[in-house]
Amino acid sequence: MSHDEALPQVACSGDAVNSQIRSLLDRVGDKWSLLILGTLQAGPQRFTALLGGIDGISQRMLTLTLRHLERDGLVRREVYAVVPPKVEYELTDLGHTLLRPVLELVAWSQEHADEIDGHRAAYDAARG
Amino acid sequence: MSHDEALPQVACSGDAVNSQIRSLLDRVGDKWSLLILGTLQAGPQRFTALLGGIDGISQRMLTLTLRHLERDGLVRREVYAVVPPKVEYELTDLGHTLLRPVLELVAWSQEHADEIDGHRAAYDAARG
Repeated sequence: MSHDEALPQVACSGDAVNSQIRSLLDRVGDKWSLLILGTLQAGPQRFTALLGGIDGISQRMLTLTLRHLERDGLVRREVYAVVPPKVEYELTDLGHTLLRPVLELVAWSQEHADEIDGHRAAYDAARG
Repeated sequence: MSHDEALPQVACSGDAVNSQIRSLLDRVGDKWSLLILGTLQAGPQRFTALLGGIDGISQRMLTLTLRHLERDGLVRREVYAVVPPKVEYELTDLGHTLLRPVLELVAWSQEHADEIDGHRAAYDAARG
């Protein structure tokens, strides 16, 4: 089938794919991680700018998620020795490489949004 | 920067990217959807096979998630007129196209697993 031709090189059994999807979700599957990475795509940001820029995130959740992203090597915390001290967060090279497949997924979502809406309408119409 | 060269065609401001990531997550961002899609990559499956094959999913959650996937046009429910009736779920063409970027993300995760583990170890060591 044509849609299988160019699949990325991952194992092909459902079980193997599933254990890979699980470990992927454990690593980067939470909403806040993705939203922070998306926000940092535009460039380095201060904590307060992230807090204001990501709708619905709490200060505690932002702190925790940034720490996880920093621990994973996806985000770098940069402290500038100025008065008052300035702290910024920015994507590492590794973080940039992750953003690429994330944006592929976003592109898929945009590309097929109308098609999905059409399917939903048809599904709902068929069931009254 | 070289890692930005081949980014997919999506808007580049942090805000725009974030609203796209949000709508993506609303659409296909839950763990069970991705795990069902991953399982169906291997071919059509009956409900009971899915239930047994996806660790931790409840009968109710599987029913609900399949219904959402069917409504979105990602999964097809095929009823065979045999005795006893046989029902199978399979990926639609649209479902196959979604699996592709999902597997790109999985491939990223596999490719960088060791690197991430290394970052974690270094982070933990630096903080005692």
